[in-house]
Amino acid sequence: MQVTRRSTCPAACALDVAGDRWTLLIVRDLLRGRDTYGKLAASDEGIPTNILADRLKKMEAAGLIEAKPYQERPVRYRYVLTEKGRDLGSVLAALAGWGKKHVRGTIVPPEFRREKAKRA
Amino acid sequence: MQVTRRSTCPAACALDVAGDRWTLLIVRDLLRGRDTYGKLAASDEGIPTNILADRLKKMEAAGLIEAKPYQERPVRYRYVLTEKGRDLGSVLAALAGWGKKHVRGTIVPPEFRREKAKRA
Repeated sequence: MQVTRRSTCPAACALDVAGDRWTLLIVRDLLRGRDTYGKLAASDEGIPTNILADRLKKMEAAGLIEAKPYQERPVRYRYVLTEKGRDLGSVLAALAGWGKKHVRGTIVPPEFRREKAKRA
Repeated sequence: MQVTRRSTCPAACALDVAGDRWTLLIVRDLLRGRDTYGKLAASDEGIPTNILADRLKKMEAAGLIEAKPYQERPVRYRYVLTEKGRDLGSVLAALAGWGKKHVRGTIVPPEFRREKAKRA
């Protein structure tokens, strides 16, 4: 995919790739092991399937994910984050920190909760 | 503004507010003191003026910025980040870190370059 670059600003360049309401949520779900089309389509946010298909195609073209077949006839893929895609986890963490602080009633998904140190 | 909330995930809630290609670039420019409509419209990325006007309205309604008049007849506003808006700086920093690492040829805007320690 030819990503249209608006400037040389590194934040703007990152937003050229991941600046929309869905791409980073797909990264979030891949980070917690929801790696097939069906699992991704079942996200809490109810991503429309046409948008999911479009974003997966764009994310693959942008080098954020790789599609790996895990079944033939019919062929089915699982989606695996590349290093480039996995590194967007830092952006997600910053977003989540902001959401926890500034939006009421948020709940961190269980897969991302830090284990609390157990003291006996 | 009634922000449509897609889930209780804090990252998703943050993206409900700031998940688009422009809002965080406006935050970036406000952080570096470009605080009037004219200065914001002159961004390197060439934000279309209808989008700038729309985003400023939404950002104000979401509590990210306040419009403060600095001139009457005609009234002109400057835009000031609230704490909620300023805190999006951490998301911008994460995006910039990702962009610097994964997109070739990015250049950090001078206002955000760390002063190098001078050793004599």
